[in-house]
Amino acid sequence: MNLKDIEILKTQYLKEMTRLLNFSEEELAVIHSLNIFRAYKKGTILLKEGQFSKTSYYLIKGCLRSYYLVDGEEKITAFFTENEQFSPSCIITNKPSEHYVACVEDCLVSIGTPESEKMMLERFPRFEKICRLYSEELLVKQQTAFDHFKIASPEQRYMNFVSSRPDLLQRVPQYQIASYLGLTPQSLSRIRKRLVKTEQYLHKVAI
Amino acid sequence: MNLKDIEILKTQYLKEMTRLLNFSEEELAVIHSLNIFRAYKKGTILLKEGQFSKTSYYLIKGCLRSYYLVDGEEKITAFFTENEQFSPSCIITNKPSEHYVACVEDCLVSIGTPESEKMMLERFPRFEKICRLYSEELLVKQQTAFDHFKIASPEQRYMNFVSSRPDLLQRVPQYQIASYLGLTPQSLSRIRKRLVKTEQYLHKVAI
Repeated sequence: MNLKDIEILKTQYLKEMTRLLNFSEEELAVIHSLNIFRAYKKGTILLKEGQFSKTSYYLIKGCLRSYYLVDGEEKITAFFTENEQFSPSCIITNKPSEHYVACVEDCLVSIGTPESEKMMLERFPRFEKICRLYSEELLVKQQTAFDHFKIASPEQRYMNFVSSRPDLLQRVPQYQIASYLGLTPQSLSRIRKRLVKTEQYLHKVAI
Repeated sequence: MNLKDIEILKTQYLKEMTRLLNFSEEELAVIHSLNIFRAYKKGTILLKEGQFSKTSYYLIKGCLRSYYLVDGEEKITAFFTENEQFSPSCIITNKPSEHYVACVEDCLVSIGTPESEKMMLERFPRFEKICRLYSEELLVKQQTAFDHFKIASPEQRYMNFVSSRPDLLQRVPQYQIASYLGLTPQSLSRIRKRLVKTEQYLHKVAI
């Protein structure tokens, strides 16, 4: 992303948020004054194990991955893309991070800190309701994703991923998708081959 | 639980909530008028697959389990005990439930509906902040639990469970714990035997 692209994206984002949340002139002025935008290059690590960050990120453009290092091996637990938010658990737990967060692609984000959020909520109390509804929605989405992960076979897990996050298939390397699904790259490769054969078989039957 | 026990628990609950949330007389009067308490016998099913309930439950006493039926087999995805809340995803998704919720023990709960919550939040806007903070806290807890489930080996998963939910070991049958951990009862049994041997070995070394 060059500077011109970043400026275009910032303007689009504020326009879209104004449409969705009906920002007043005063609210927009405060948002502008907060200097909330950050651009990061692909590969940048935003949070490391042991760090104590309280910065949360809302993705305007790009993709983040969250991962743990277990015996030197990267175990990916989440991807975040456009219009998704990542808040480090440190904000609530007051304990250092157990995991890493890194940019899978060049990213443009808006950042939040407990201080800026407190100030915004005190000044514009209507944001309390917006934030509550957003958190409640995320909670249900996350609970459903956790449930589906638990009850699915590895093959179903991959199919759920393909249907719920088709964009990520093109954006993320296959070994990272395998890690995210709790599979080895070899298992994922076998599953994909099996599914392709089934699709070809189903196609023949249909003809 | 007999009627006397239920009355004692209700009084304790309202006293504790008044202490934590600093209820005013007016707020307490409205809560009393809402008739929020329900007692259910062990085995009662509160939500079934295909139902469209919008009732949420806050556990005052007892234990609930949430499960899916996959090819006739019960796959448990969550337990809820004292001071935990279960909200069906229907509230947010407007789709019928994919899973079941049942009482593992006799339960006393306080219930909420979108209508009662809307009324309370409109009448007492300070509850917006309380509900937002509660949802944000739950979100982080749930994300961490999901991460730990993903990155852990079956043995570690059981050890995490023992350290994070020791009370459930006594309250829930072992086959339900196995299901919750994504294990067969046989695997869980082998893991427990291995751990007992390791503990005995560690104990000998320590002597």
